[in-house]
Amino acid sequence: MTVRIGVIGTGMIGEEHSRRISQQLTGGEITAVTDVNQEQAQTMVDRLSLDAKVYDNGLELIQAEHVDAVMVTSWGPTHEEYVLAAIQAGKYVFCEKPLATTAQGCRNIIDAEIEAGKRRVQVGFMRRYDSGYQLMKEAIEANRLGEPLMIHAAHRNPTVPERYVTPMAIHDTLIHELDTFRWLLNDDYATAQVIFPRKTRHAHGKVEDPQIILLETTQGVRIDVEVFVNCQYGYDIQCDVVGEEGIAHLPEPQSLTLRQAGQRSNEILQDWKKRFGEAFDVELQAFIDGAASDTVGGPSSWDGYAAAIASDACVKAQESGQIEKIEMPERPAFYA
Amino acid sequence: MTVRIGVIGTGMIGEEHSRRISQQLTGGEITAVTDVNQEQAQTMVDRLSLDAKVYDNGLELIQAEHVDAVMVTSWGPTHEEYVLAAIQAGKYVFCEKPLATTAQGCRNIIDAEIEAGKRRVQVGFMRRYDSGYQLMKEAIEANRLGEPLMIHAAHRNPTVPERYVTPMAIHDTLIHELDTFRWLLNDDYATAQVIFPRKTRHAHGKVEDPQIILLETTQGVRIDVEVFVNCQYGYDIQCDVVGEEGIAHLPEPQSLTLRQAGQRSNEILQDWKKRFGEAFDVELQAFIDGAASDTVGGPSSWDGYAAAIASDACVKAQESGQIEKIEMPERPAFYA
Amino acid sequence: MTVRIGVIGTGMIGEEHSRRISQQLTGGEITAVTDVNQEQAQTMVDRLSLDAKVYDNGLELIQAEHVDAVMVTSWGPTHEEYVLAAIQAGKYVFCEKPLATTAQGCRNIIDAEIEAGKRRVQVGFMRRYDSGYQLMKEAIEANRLGEPLMIHAAHRNPTVPERYVTPMAIHDTLIHELDTFRWLLNDDYATAQVIFPRKTRHAHGKVEDPQIILLETTQGVRIDVEVFVNCQYGYDIQCDVVGEEGIAHLPEPQSLTLRQAGQRSNEILQDWKKRFGEAFDVELQAFIDGAASDTVGGPSSWDGYAAAIASDACVKAQESGQIEKIEMPERPAFYA
Amino acid sequence: MTVRIGVIGTGMIGEEHSRRISQQLTGGEITAVTDVNQEQAQTMVDRLSLDAKVYDNGLELIQAEHVDAVMVTSWGPTHEEYVLAAIQAGKYVFCEKPLATTAQGCRNIIDAEIEAGKRRVQVGFMRRYDSGYQLMKEAIEANRLGEPLMIHAAHRNPTVPERYVTPMAIHDTLIHELDTFRWLLNDDYATAQVIFPRKTRHAHGKVEDPQIILLETTQGVRIDVEVFVNCQYGYDIQCDVVGEEGIAHLPEPQSLTLRQAGQRSNEILQDWKKRFGEAFDVELQAFIDGAASDTVGGPSSWDGYAAAIASDACVKAQESGQIEKIEMPERPAFYA
Repeated sequence: MTVRIGVIGTGMIGEEHSRRISQQLTGGEITAVTDVNQEQAQTMVDRLSLDAKVYDNGLELIQAEHVDAVMVTSWGPTHEEYVLAAIQAGKYVFCEKPLATTAQGCRNIIDAEIEAGKRRVQVGFMRRYDSGYQLMKEAIEANRLGEPLMIHAAHRNPTVPERYVTPMAIHDTLIHELDTFRWLLNDDYATAQVIFPRKTRHAHGKVEDPQIILLETTQGVRIDVEVFVNCQYGYDIQCDVVGEEGIAHLPEPQSLTLRQAGQRSNEILQDWKKRFGEAFDVELQAFIDGAASDTVGGPSSWDGYAAAIASDACVKAQESGQIEKIEMPERPAFYA
Repeated sequence: MTVRIGVIGTGMIGEEHSRRISQQLTGGEITAVTDVNQEQAQTMVDRLSLDAKVYDNGLELIQAEHVDAVMVTSWGPTHEEYVLAAIQAGKYVFCEKPLATTAQGCRNIIDAEIEAGKRRVQVGFMRRYDSGYQLMKEAIEANRLGEPLMIHAAHRNPTVPERYVTPMAIHDTLIHELDTFRWLLNDDYATAQVIFPRKTRHAHGKVEDPQIILLETTQGVRIDVEVFVNCQYGYDIQCDVVGEEGIAHLPEPQSLTLRQAGQRSNEILQDWKKRFGEAFDVELQAFIDGAASDTVGGPSSWDGYAAAIASDACVKAQESGQIEKIEMPERPAFYA
Repeated sequence: MTVRIGVIGTGMIGEEHSRRISQQLTGGEITAVTDVNQEQAQTMVDRLSLDAKVYDNGLELIQAEHVDAVMVTSWGPTHEEYVLAAIQAGKYVFCEKPLATTAQGCRNIIDAEIEAGKRRVQVGFMRRYDSGYQLMKEAIEANRLGEPLMIHAAHRNPTVPERYVTPMAIHDTLIHELDTFRWLLNDDYATAQVIFPRKTRHAHGKVEDPQIILLETTQGVRIDVEVFVNCQYGYDIQCDVVGEEGIAHLPEPQSLTLRQAGQRSNEILQDWKKRFGEAFDVELQAFIDGAASDTVGGPSSWDGYAAAIASDACVKAQESGQIEKIEMPERPAFYA
Repeated sequence: MTVRIGVIGTGMIGEEHSRRISQQLTGGEITAVTDVNQEQAQTMVDRLSLDAKVYDNGLELIQAEHVDAVMVTSWGPTHEEYVLAAIQAGKYVFCEKPLATTAQGCRNIIDAEIEAGKRRVQVGFMRRYDSGYQLMKEAIEANRLGEPLMIHAAHRNPTVPERYVTPMAIHDTLIHELDTFRWLLNDDYATAQVIFPRKTRHAHGKVEDPQIILLETTQGVRIDVEVFVNCQYGYDIQCDVVGEEGIAHLPEPQSLTLRQAGQRSNEILQDWKKRFGEAFDVELQAFIDGAASDTVGGPSSWDGYAAAIASDACVKAQESGQIEKIEMPERPAFYA
């Protein structure tokens, strides 16, 4: 059975995912698309040679009979509405991060999903599907490090545009780490603190850069994440998990070692799309396979909610300069 | 359009490839299978839940109307016959190495393909599809190393079974390097020499192990390849290309760096299936896409022929202890 | 001219340094020794075949005519008295850390040295002489990283004995980082904070382990140091300096890369004596050369004082859980 | 006791060693120097502020009473005469490579040394004192690799001057590997073969570059050494020992890892003086200590002789294109 997918939002990430589904992955096809900009939607249909109908809006698309599953890649503030509609329509939905722009929005989705009685939502936290993080997860689960005690991490971009402001270091950047570490550790956050080092001369006026975010989990694991979005030299994701008996380092992306001109060197990627390209493939294939076999897995609405709560606390910590508490409600059995 | 594939030979590699095509890749489906052992063929159909007919023999399968393309993964000595039949039937054919067990057999295929007037054959040299070798190829083509002058390489297996005898170090093992280096260098071989170091105590009686194969190309590039098939420690493929201005090293497979018990360590793979798993995916996807778009690419019959000629010379050099000439006929414009 | 050195304190580090001076380094000889345990002093003289007189106490040794320079490697609480005596006697003095056990003690030394009008003291912060840290210092000074913004560091020991208690993570362990980072950055500390992650099961009852110390410099550079003294796997010193345009990593100590038993591995040292062995050589040679040429350099009394003030603030931060201010008095021109 | 050393030959290497002895090492002093260019000898005395007499010629210097040991760093063809004279004078002699310019010359020295009844000669093969090679030696002796079967090595220089001609790839360059591998393996050579890859465009007319030298030991270990003296990118010494159960790689020299401008890079040295600087220190200190304790060790006349015989065979193999036999006379018990 081929899963017929409707795409809401045909911007950059929507088109990337649509290209994946239609050209690289197996078991899915794009049968419906929509975008606030209808022309852009049609352009994508043409560019990817899709056999897909362009809809006036997301809600209509969700209802369409020839749509088995929905992919929400529209503007963040619209996510909640579409995910809720998909749940009510009894359709699987892949929702790019954020699940909703507020914790309450996420909570609404959770309540709807529980009431509907079946997991429908997969949130677009692709790092869980990255082969490097998966090796780390395996090492932790196999107890090769002993109990985890600390994580040292870094999330670096070469540059960001002018519109990138201080809280986006949390909402757009750290959000990935927030989900990943919960998953790696099987744990939730208890506190957050944000430290602002001396600002780099390469950051424009509206963003504090770099930042260091300090997190504490309920088990007492301490995490420090350097977020440095104008680091100049590349897109670089680092993660060390320090356990009672050993340490695991996230593998570097594959690259050639060259000896040349007095240097032994490896290229550093410049772009998240390349860094996590395979993870996106695996993530979307998992969604298609899940929809085909009627049991979606991966990051759930609950994970989206947890990330939203932690994000909010981190932004509050940016503003207050204080250690902020992160209080997660009890996890419903539904998401156990 | 979905490419309907008939599989001849349902042994280990045949089943691996069938699983790939039916479960991981896109655009192809297995509609027909056959094996000298019909029961095994049926078992595979069941195990992979294929909607495929089991044929009495390869020739019938090739003729079947619901077969657009053929995959030959049967016993080596049968390859030539099936590939010829597929060419005559005007069907694309993916043939696992060797293309034929003799150079003359390869030549017969070439002649048939030229006569038929269209490239139909893709030979299963998967390393060309490995992302690491592709980075090397790109670096060479982009002239980042200057003109290549030497290649230092190693092909190591942890162990081999009793049935592995000295010439198999060429036919089964070195064969991959023989194709890969022609492709990396855009060059052909001129001479071969084989050196036998002191034998490892871990090799059984019928195999000289390790061996060092020395190759010279028509451009004067000198290549040394250590073939060491009882190296104990892992499956390890090494390749350094030394150019006039720099050196490129084949990347190590991705692995976690662990600090633990007094060691900073990375796991070494034990198995070629894992080492080249992604290369097999890309290789077969390329075949399917090629068949779908009616223009197969990748390693051609000519490449299979060249590898056979070089192999023969290497085996002769094993026996003679001398430097053996390798004479390639002129490449027909058809394969330019 | 050979520098005649008197050694006060013949414990482990005193004997190590004496062995260096008498057997490995050039330009110095040990002519006098003393220890609170006279027998131990005599034993060292015999073991190293020194032509040295054993003195009743440090003050007599300092006055001895055949002593040009003094090495203080006695119990910490005695350092201040001996260093002051050496200054008054107009003799160069190498003092192992700590310069004094209190900031006031260090201040007394500074005042005495200034009054005497000449730098006499070299404090035993050997990391400044480590070739790896020197490469980092050069890279920073050559502006290869841009302005430094952050340091991520770790100081790990395999295990510590029962007598090692929580504040020793600062006084005995972090003390090296406290000096090294001031030197690397040409900067002073402004604040300190200490975080206690979940405690490792390998730590005995009296020590919180690991700890993370957060430092801020007057220029706004933010530093995080993991101190983990029961990490089990080895003695491991890590230091990354993150600048506006790049990052430098402290080199790993030299080791063999082995491929063996499914692992590509490098040995991790277990012992600070081996890790910083060459740094101790260079440090003491610098002291001897300085004494010979009448101008001692390297870590000064002022550096010892700065480390003491920062240490005190870190211990206070351990106890308070708060961000503690670090206030350095203005640096006298004498130490510019 | 201070060893009083007379230096014959004050060229570049003579002055480097003299600087080491007089400024860095312990237990030795330069009391006499000579050079075919007396003015240059005096200049060195002045530049290093030595308290040394300038002699008219080497033979007089050797006889001088205030000379305990001799260092021969003069022009190669003069080595034999000076070493013989030192042996006859009953003085320890450190002789830079080559021990003599012919195998017969080395043999003369051996005969003289045996007749004199005591080892007097240490040959300047400094790699045995390199910490990286020492780790390899330890790993082999501790049987961590199993029996050695192969060595893959490379000796690369960025460029060489016009006067460097093809045989110098053996006499001046490979000579170090020839000694090192005999020592690493406790073995002698049986055959040599030389292969000439395509010549780099960066080599001038009188030198074939690169070359690959193939050696076989009496135990059947096979060695390939790439000699590439115009590799452009740096001075780079590589050595992998492949054993029955594992492989050891010669450590890279210490360097900073930088992340910068899209590259993760380490600097490659450009100069053998820097690469083996510490090895020279250890080598010469060993000579001084040996002379002081009346038992010189390290590379012996026999080792110099063995390297000369192997060199001659390699040059013959360069010329003949054939596999040349290397026949070592039986080792006298004197050198066991």
